[in-house]
Amino acid sequence: MTTIGFIGLGIMGGPMARHLVAAGHEVTGFNRSPEKTRPLVDAGGRAAGSVAEAVDGADVVALMLPDSPDVEAVLDGEDGVFATAKPGTLVIDFSTIRPDVARDLAERAAARGLRMIDAPVSGGQAGAENATLSIMVGGKADDVGAARPLLDAVGRTVVHVGPIGSGQTVKAANQLIVAGNIALLAEALVFLQAHGADLPAAVEVLGGGLAGSAVLTQKAQKMLDADYTPGFRIDLHHKDMGIVADAARAAGVVTPVGALVAQLVAATRAAGDGGSDHSALHRTIAGLSGEATGRP
Amino acid sequence: MTTIGFIGLGIMGGPMARHLVAAGHEVTGFNRSPEKTRPLVDAGGRAAGSVAEAVDGADVVALMLPDSPDVEAVLDGEDGVFATAKPGTLVIDFSTIRPDVARDLAERAAARGLRMIDAPVSGGQAGAENATLSIMVGGKADDVGAARPLLDAVGRTVVHVGPIGSGQTVKAANQLIVAGNIALLAEALVFLQAHGADLPAAVEVLGGGLAGSAVLTQKAQKMLDADYTPGFRIDLHHKDMGIVADAARAAGVVTPVGALVAQLVAATRAAGDGGSDHSALHRTIAGLSGEATGRP
Amino acid sequence: MTTIGFIGLGIMGGPMARHLVAAGHEVTGFNRSPEKTRPLVDAGGRAAGSVAEAVDGADVVALMLPDSPDVEAVLDGEDGVFATAKPGTLVIDFSTIRPDVARDLAERAAARGLRMIDAPVSGGQAGAENATLSIMVGGKADDVGAARPLLDAVGRTVVHVGPIGSGQTVKAANQLIVAGNIALLAEALVFLQAHGADLPAAVEVLGGGLAGSAVLTQKAQKMLDADYTPGFRIDLHHKDMGIVADAARAAGVVTPVGALVAQLVAATRAAGDGGSDHSALHRTIAGLSGEATGRP
Amino acid sequence: MTTIGFIGLGIMGGPMARHLVAAGHEVTGFNRSPEKTRPLVDAGGRAAGSVAEAVDGADVVALMLPDSPDVEAVLDGEDGVFATAKPGTLVIDFSTIRPDVARDLAERAAARGLRMIDAPVSGGQAGAENATLSIMVGGKADDVGAARPLLDAVGRTVVHVGPIGSGQTVKAANQLIVAGNIALLAEALVFLQAHGADLPAAVEVLGGGLAGSAVLTQKAQKMLDADYTPGFRIDLHHKDMGIVADAARAAGVVTPVGALVAQLVAATRAAGDGGSDHSALHRTIAGLSGEATGRP
Repeated sequence: MTTIGFIGLGIMGGPMARHLVAAGHEVTGFNRSPEKTRPLVDAGGRAAGSVAEAVDGADVVALMLPDSPDVEAVLDGEDGVFATAKPGTLVIDFSTIRPDVARDLAERAAARGLRMIDAPVSGGQAGAENATLSIMVGGKADDVGAARPLLDAVGRTVVHVGPIGSGQTVKAANQLIVAGNIALLAEALVFLQAHGADLPAAVEVLGGGLAGSAVLTQKAQKMLDADYTPGFRIDLHHKDMGIVADAARAAGVVTPVGALVAQLVAATRAAGDGGSDHSALHRTIAGLSGEATGRP
Repeated sequence: MTTIGFIGLGIMGGPMARHLVAAGHEVTGFNRSPEKTRPLVDAGGRAAGSVAEAVDGADVVALMLPDSPDVEAVLDGEDGVFATAKPGTLVIDFSTIRPDVARDLAERAAARGLRMIDAPVSGGQAGAENATLSIMVGGKADDVGAARPLLDAVGRTVVHVGPIGSGQTVKAANQLIVAGNIALLAEALVFLQAHGADLPAAVEVLGGGLAGSAVLTQKAQKMLDADYTPGFRIDLHHKDMGIVADAARAAGVVTPVGALVAQLVAATRAAGDGGSDHSALHRTIAGLSGEATGRP
Repeated sequence: MTTIGFIGLGIMGGPMARHLVAAGHEVTGFNRSPEKTRPLVDAGGRAAGSVAEAVDGADVVALMLPDSPDVEAVLDGEDGVFATAKPGTLVIDFSTIRPDVARDLAERAAARGLRMIDAPVSGGQAGAENATLSIMVGGKADDVGAARPLLDAVGRTVVHVGPIGSGQTVKAANQLIVAGNIALLAEALVFLQAHGADLPAAVEVLGGGLAGSAVLTQKAQKMLDADYTPGFRIDLHHKDMGIVADAARAAGVVTPVGALVAQLVAATRAAGDGGSDHSALHRTIAGLSGEATGRP
Repeated sequence: MTTIGFIGLGIMGGPMARHLVAAGHEVTGFNRSPEKTRPLVDAGGRAAGSVAEAVDGADVVALMLPDSPDVEAVLDGEDGVFATAKPGTLVIDFSTIRPDVARDLAERAAARGLRMIDAPVSGGQAGAENATLSIMVGGKADDVGAARPLLDAVGRTVVHVGPIGSGQTVKAANQLIVAGNIALLAEALVFLQAHGADLPAAVEVLGGGLAGSAVLTQKAQKMLDADYTPGFRIDLHHKDMGIVADAARAAGVVTPVGALVAQLVAATRAAGDGGSDHSALHRTIAGLSGEATGRP
């Protein structure tokens, strides 16, 4: 049994925290919008009124927050984790942030006697709810080993991919692939619709061959239903594509398809779909072909 | 038991014909390079010295050929299938060709009292060898019904997607997705390598989440090993991307990502990799980032 | 003084025919919509009621038509030029068509004792009206020499670029550059507007440096005014980008930027701007950034 | 007569400083590689051994440096301009840097009683040598007015485009257009070469119509000659495309063509052409089509 402070109880963090409760851990959650702590309390956890309260007495502090500045504020801000956690506390950052920020924060944590790993996840809302997430873990072997029972409680594929920051690098690659696969699926569906194909039959047979993918399994039906409720929001994927672009540029890497897909994600956001599921890329693609998109 | 003439015994057609033998059918195969009939004979089939000989006495004629002109020549050329098959013969075209050519050939077949369906496949060499292909079938319900036992003998996901030509349309969409997924995987791997990530670990964890795909499962290791033996040749995928482009233009459909990926496929071919597996897109992507590609 | 039959009196052909009158030639014009012959008659030319009537007695037949099928119909259709022109007649095709069609028609012309050159033009409506067109001429040196006085009457930069069909190849390259330059100008203006720059001042200074171009001079103001009256229609530029794509594929040439720009042209057409000036690409680019485009 | 300290005497700054001497001003130049001051001295200027020495007694300090960090170091570093210039000195920054950095530096300048304008240029080496540069000027009207005689001495098209930073924004748009026009010209030339066109004739006729541009005039011959001596280096254009990308993202602007072109610039740099003229994009494009590029 581990005492865990969990910061960030949104679409992803909420079910993850509850899985930790279900695995027998003592979880105290904090969220800026306090009503999101209710499901955790209903599941047997506790609600904290501040970061400091969530951290108090915790052996492990877990974070699932939207972006680099959020993580920096919660960790190194006033009354934040670095200021209030007891020495030796293990910080597990599930957020998707810049690899260089992850490395920098880990150094600051170490300077205060804390340990830190980066553990961004893939698998979306369904993965969080079913505890089937893929988790790409960066950090020291000892710290990753210590965290593994907790990671196994929320994920199915947990892989140590290198030193601190590596999890974020692999997550960036993941987001590049996912955004691209979504865009390609959208182009295929628009193409098939224009040719009058039987779309559900087409999706079935596409899924059985080399075109099959998790994106096809999880997103094709949403596109056919024009149901763009998140899921994973375009705003976040747009942020992630910025991380990919910056990291590619820093390493001198050329990613032409990724760069174009990033523009389509940006266009989806500019069209007002920032709060929609990333499958709303379909609306941008359909709009380019002159199809009605249902956008206002 | 059905008597089948099978034309085209290459990487795909060879194992498919043998699966039909294994399912209890009488299969006579023809291939332009006659040495490729040997594995069929070893498996219990027979070898023909001409198209007409393969067609003679057959209830079903199956084709697995590279491109539209090949199919047209075998079907409607001198001493071809249309000239030699008995009335009522069912022609199953497993080749990937232009949808409009498929429709045109089916009309010519009907004028001669023959029946025809288009049944292009996905799943690659592995799918052909393991009889786990996805088959996208276009044609009349009766003809598809008659063919289904044979289709089930070579595929796992067999779906009737609409009238004649629809199989080719769905196959075009399939090829669009597959080429794009390969390009994105290549970009991700080049990105990860430049950042010094543990590539096999990264592939494992990417495969477990929303970035997971049949392409990742079947092609990532080939890229890591720089093993570009086909598999499915770039020359054929280049041909298929031309079908996608023409069909998209005909329908007024805009596919920006597909159009860019088609250029990368064309560049891979121009670099001399036409005979390599389509995973050789990785070499083009790596070359753009200045990495040594092993190309001469 | 040359007797000329001029087929096709639209935005481009109309002023060109009148310049030939002004240069002292006897011009009989035909247009499918007969009211378009009036300005020619007002300028001192004559109107014909059919292709055959325009060709009757002509030493030179000039064509300025939208697309390959139009040219084929006028030349080789019933009562067309090939059937009615006297031996030795010189056919000057100003239209932009497929290079292979140009070569094929020239062969058919030769078989009937006629001579033919391809002479597509660049410079747009302004170039036609001011007789400042660039003309890219393909054909035999003798034929080009014979045509040169007429070409000089409608253009300022008249260059013999190779054998028959070469004019069309260079025109395809021209259209690739022009569409791309328009798209880039549109992206630059959307970028500058979003940053609150003084757009007319920016256009002035951009025009004085390495970003200066004929496109900037002729199209920037149209974009600032949201005045998309043609000019040169998107439908035609879409057709031309298809010629570019086919010719590039045939030659094994990779044109990633051209391929993407072709998609943006297609999107502009799909959005209902087929009849607008190609500067309406600006609306597609602005729309991608979420700006109001004034489209219905 | 104005006393001017000029920092940065490279391909661009060198001739600009000499034009100021020729216009009757007293110019003291500084360059990190001191041998580059010689042409200035030969032209009647003076050489300084440090930034402080160049600034000493100057009414105006002009900068022409590669990137934002260089400008920051020279202005706000130890013994830099801000520390040594007398109150009221006008700083003219001809460098191409980030718009936000320009704004930030101008604030710091003001805090020290100095005045500052941003005045990035376009027109390349030829424009600098012939004093025909386009200059996009951002700043207060008074300061721009005071600088105008000096700007007119080095440029032909001098336009005040808005408050401080605006010059950089317009320059970013300029670089977007220029890189794209270069890439399109390269694609056109590769296309024409593959079709066996007469390239010099084609360039002549393209230049006369709507495809005409400063890029075509200044860069086509370099491409035909495979002469990639700078000129303007790929490394700098790569830096500038990063400024474009960041500024576009900050403003929520979508630039699909620009994003793709930025990848091609990055690929040119990755191939080892960072020190070559930006016309070396031609080598990347030619390489994609499998042409020999002469790269090692």
